[in-house]
Amino acid sequence: MLDACINIRTMLNRNARRAAVLGASGYSGAELLGLLQRHPSLEPAFATSEAGAGGRVPGSSLRYVRAEDVPFREVDVVFTCLPHGEAGELSLRARGDGALVVDLSSDLRDGTAGAVYGLPELWRSQVRGAALVANPGCYPTGILLTAAPLLAAGLMDRSRPLIVNAASGVTGAGRSAKRELLFGQVAADYRAYGLGNTHRHVPEIARSLAVLAGAEVPFVFSPHLLPVRRGILETIYVPVADGVGVAEVEAAWRQAYGGERFVELWHGELPSLRSVVGRNVVALGAAGVAGMPGMVVVVAAFDNLVKGAAGQALQNANLMLGLSEEEGLPQ
Amino acid sequence: MLDACINIRTMLNRNARRAAVLGASGYSGAELLGLLQRHPSLEPAFATSEAGAGGRVPGSSLRYVRAEDVPFREVDVVFTCLPHGEAGELSLRARGDGALVVDLSSDLRDGTAGAVYGLPELWRSQVRGAALVANPGCYPTGILLTAAPLLAAGLMDRSRPLIVNAASGVTGAGRSAKRELLFGQVAADYRAYGLGNTHRHVPEIARSLAVLAGAEVPFVFSPHLLPVRRGILETIYVPVADGVGVAEVEAAWRQAYGGERFVELWHGELPSLRSVVGRNVVALGAAGVAGMPGMVVVVAAFDNLVKGAAGQALQNANLMLGLSEEEGLPQ
Amino acid sequence: MLDACINIRTMLNRNARRAAVLGASGYSGAELLGLLQRHPSLEPAFATSEAGAGGRVPGSSLRYVRAEDVPFREVDVVFTCLPHGEAGELSLRARGDGALVVDLSSDLRDGTAGAVYGLPELWRSQVRGAALVANPGCYPTGILLTAAPLLAAGLMDRSRPLIVNAASGVTGAGRSAKRELLFGQVAADYRAYGLGNTHRHVPEIARSLAVLAGAEVPFVFSPHLLPVRRGILETIYVPVADGVGVAEVEAAWRQAYGGERFVELWHGELPSLRSVVGRNVVALGAAGVAGMPGMVVVVAAFDNLVKGAAGQALQNANLMLGLSEEEGLPQ
Amino acid sequence: MLDACINIRTMLNRNARRAAVLGASGYSGAELLGLLQRHPSLEPAFATSEAGAGGRVPGSSLRYVRAEDVPFREVDVVFTCLPHGEAGELSLRARGDGALVVDLSSDLRDGTAGAVYGLPELWRSQVRGAALVANPGCYPTGILLTAAPLLAAGLMDRSRPLIVNAASGVTGAGRSAKRELLFGQVAADYRAYGLGNTHRHVPEIARSLAVLAGAEVPFVFSPHLLPVRRGILETIYVPVADGVGVAEVEAAWRQAYGGERFVELWHGELPSLRSVVGRNVVALGAAGVAGMPGMVVVVAAFDNLVKGAAGQALQNANLMLGLSEEEGLPQ
Repeated sequence: MLDACINIRTMLNRNARRAAVLGASGYSGAELLGLLQRHPSLEPAFATSEAGAGGRVPGSSLRYVRAEDVPFREVDVVFTCLPHGEAGELSLRARGDGALVVDLSSDLRDGTAGAVYGLPELWRSQVRGAALVANPGCYPTGILLTAAPLLAAGLMDRSRPLIVNAASGVTGAGRSAKRELLFGQVAADYRAYGLGNTHRHVPEIARSLAVLAGAEVPFVFSPHLLPVRRGILETIYVPVADGVGVAEVEAAWRQAYGGERFVELWHGELPSLRSVVGRNVVALGAAGVAGMPGMVVVVAAFDNLVKGAAGQALQNANLMLGLSEEEGLPQ
Repeated sequence: MLDACINIRTMLNRNARRAAVLGASGYSGAELLGLLQRHPSLEPAFATSEAGAGGRVPGSSLRYVRAEDVPFREVDVVFTCLPHGEAGELSLRARGDGALVVDLSSDLRDGTAGAVYGLPELWRSQVRGAALVANPGCYPTGILLTAAPLLAAGLMDRSRPLIVNAASGVTGAGRSAKRELLFGQVAADYRAYGLGNTHRHVPEIARSLAVLAGAEVPFVFSPHLLPVRRGILETIYVPVADGVGVAEVEAAWRQAYGGERFVELWHGELPSLRSVVGRNVVALGAAGVAGMPGMVVVVAAFDNLVKGAAGQALQNANLMLGLSEEEGLPQ
Repeated sequence: MLDACINIRTMLNRNARRAAVLGASGYSGAELLGLLQRHPSLEPAFATSEAGAGGRVPGSSLRYVRAEDVPFREVDVVFTCLPHGEAGELSLRARGDGALVVDLSSDLRDGTAGAVYGLPELWRSQVRGAALVANPGCYPTGILLTAAPLLAAGLMDRSRPLIVNAASGVTGAGRSAKRELLFGQVAADYRAYGLGNTHRHVPEIARSLAVLAGAEVPFVFSPHLLPVRRGILETIYVPVADGVGVAEVEAAWRQAYGGERFVELWHGELPSLRSVVGRNVVALGAAGVAGMPGMVVVVAAFDNLVKGAAGQALQNANLMLGLSEEEGLPQ
Repeated sequence: MLDACINIRTMLNRNARRAAVLGASGYSGAELLGLLQRHPSLEPAFATSEAGAGGRVPGSSLRYVRAEDVPFREVDVVFTCLPHGEAGELSLRARGDGALVVDLSSDLRDGTAGAVYGLPELWRSQVRGAALVANPGCYPTGILLTAAPLLAAGLMDRSRPLIVNAASGVTGAGRSAKRELLFGQVAADYRAYGLGNTHRHVPEIARSLAVLAGAEVPFVFSPHLLPVRRGILETIYVPVADGVGVAEVEAAWRQAYGGERFVELWHGELPSLRSVVGRNVVALGAAGVAGMPGMVVVVAAFDNLVKGAAGQALQNANLMLGLSEEEGLPQ
């Protein structure tokens, strides 16, 4: 039966779309490449690595090439997994050569060059028609999926700030050799960084919350570095309007995400980091605070490399190519 | 020179006070025993372990005995490191037999039997004269040391809740064999537990904040389990009064803790977990939030087994015995 | 296309075989259940957990039942993932009721009740016709796959012992609550256990090597506990005959495993633990020792829960059921 | 009493010797600086860091300077904790200016410039009179302390190789930013490196074993990288002469190390990594192999940064300065 599928895939793959992954030896690039290798109708045709050019891609018959050697005109979709600052320009060049582009950096998230902000659960129709998509940052993905239905339903008290205490595994910081990311530094440690709304995701969060609410939403964002490889868990203190509690929050989520495959609603229990690692989901759970109306505590957990990066990029590409959104994605 | 010290110690040790550690094979009991072995004028005379009775105490010439076999009348000070529920009764029995007692469980923290709440930096004079001290819980230690000077100086806006997002290493949960504390469960995970002010430390925090403020202080307490052995880092969102910022917070701390050896004030940088592990300190740092007056974010970091348990217990015992408070404590 | 596959699967699944997993809440049982959920022609029909009976199986619509409530007569294949000592009896009962059985414990590995030792790459034809299979232990799997082709080709000097220095992640020790497996004990540690050929896998290794060699093969087996969740890496010091080096070892492996999907031969590089985690493979690599003929050092790496347990069990079940051996197995 | 000691120390410290640590921001340099800060009669006067020059040394009133700014003529002892290749030249310059020198790199371990190989338990008298000492490598320390008494007593069968399967925490690889040492690479991994006697410690081991045995000793050395910060555990397969077993091995160790404070002999149990971390000891334990005479398995465990580097360097410096060997060393 698997063989049958593989045969069907081989047949169909004569028509498989060709993908290029720019920056395929970083953590999110490698994750994306792994997903593409099992994708039924997208084929990884090019993988770039400046340092590794010429070498073999692990677990594949491909060899790394330089980005400048990718013939964008012969590629259906380009995923740009390069560092912020380098990514945008290459994405635009690929787009200029006719490829569809999903840029995983923050370079185009402000709408530069008409890029669509690609959070499918919130802006699916825009993504579907887009040729250039900016994939959301990892931290914002969880925050926006938490808040969007609550803002839409008027459940939040916007006079008080949303407080997001976030913790991320180290792969979120990329695979460049930095002293502060050495095992000897990170192991047995836990630390805050970018406190006081100084993290580079803050403008993206502010902009997107404002779009959802139609007005500015005050928030405090406090990222922390966890001694784990992957996963983000955000503990979110939501100021809610009078009479709003866990039940209303859960109802708003159910209404918004009832049909969504990649948002998981937990009830009576809260998601942990490990419950989501390796899967393309954001898991949401809520708890009330005894004796304190006006506050609901939300836990949003997801894999920074999957729903926070490569998996979401694939959702976007599937939509842009007219494929089924969930093709090639681990449940 | 070390030899000189050791000789002096030996001489003085003819007068060394004798200590008993009840529950010496748990994490905080073992930590305390280690501290006592290097204490210049307190000598570990008895260490109990019900399961390990008869066996040798690692790194010592002592053997574990059963709690019932400790002659409390021949002991100067008893440290009770037993599980909540078991500890209080034994502490009272030891006290009845004339020993000074520091109880590390939560059994007596509500003042039962006249026990003094032993957070020396806040209530030193009470501890000095006490014969029965309840050692504070680990989480409350950081919260109270953060808040006390701010409440005293009127810097907090008590109409809004203090939000404490806390993360602890697993030794805080003790050394009993529980499935959820297995390496296979905890490694690569991070999870919230006891959300919504349901953790057993909540009444202790509420009670102590109320004592400090002279009125109830609203707060939200959200503990999380970190995949590390030791250390607590609390990210505390402090609602501050008009015109109050990081400078005022730091000034209040400096005034309160200027002469304290075991509170470390960080400026311009925030303490991380690893910066405090193994040391008897609470490290405090503060950050403002860009564009959001009325909020200061504090990071309080400390070792749950040292300043959060055994080290603080030793501070208390030193005070009760009329010794110098810092004797035997790692700086 | 995936949908096409799913439809085909649904159609075929009218004929899907029904599987029961006994002990489905332990680490290898849960791993196996996860594999079955994605298996195209085997369906997890029953999952047992004595402690968790009545509760929902994570990520599934199944509920745990007690082992005694599984109607073995209505099941095609039973996987017994229970502790050694409990497993064998239940396996025999299931077999008596007509089910095919793969027992993952050590209870039947000595051939009790005619059980076939199920290491497919070495004894595939016996497995194919078997109704009762004893799944090999994790450690032996790597040792036997390393040594079998070398013994067959006469490359080993059997007068000197094979030395196996093995290191395993903690899931190999199961999910029972034991103090020595707590995160607080295992983290930042590494230790030998069962040195001097006292580990319970020693008789299994001895027996199987003797079968392969037609005579006793001397060996030393030294397991160690790694502070990781999963994976085994065995560093094996192979005494080789005159004139034998890495090239001859690799050639013997290539000849034996050229057509095998689940044995991965590395050349010029050695497999690491992380290169195999989550995959159903044993990866083998070899290195010579400068200036020391007569010795080849082999590294065998594999995931103790996949090729060392659940994945191999599925290979066996596929063969017993007449399915394609690789169905449902991650590459 | 502690105060008394501190006063005595202050008095004596008028005569304290002045030390310089070259490369004080690396792992072993920082460890050494920490030890010096508590040393009763050695005072850290200079700490160098090229990258950090001008910045404050954590936990100290010192500031980092550049190595070229250290006035070696005003310093009693210099510890060179620089990378191999850079260290030797600076050590010789410091020696030329009159300072005593302990070089922790491998640059002088072959006796270059008359450097004495500083393993005090084996060559104490040579160290005592030396002005230039090469501190042993971490791995060799455990191997040599294991083997020396066995070679001296004629217990080893030198016709068969000693096999050393070693595992080290990552701080052994230094604190330079290297991609392969990132947390994201090392966590949840375990791997061999430098197999086949290609590790740079091999010549040092060969040379020192030959000195001890008066002839070449065949050995195989296989280092592995553990996902922990610190600690080395070596599992050593010792070929022993006819009639030699664990008892004879332990007796030889007892005779050699009976009076040694920094060699710990375990009996009936084997040392684990965590039992030695933070302490200046090598712990040794031995096990026989059932049914296999001629082989004893030894476990040697020690902290690579303490007895494997900074602690041993301090032993050497104490001896060179005529101080008590154990001054300033954690037991």
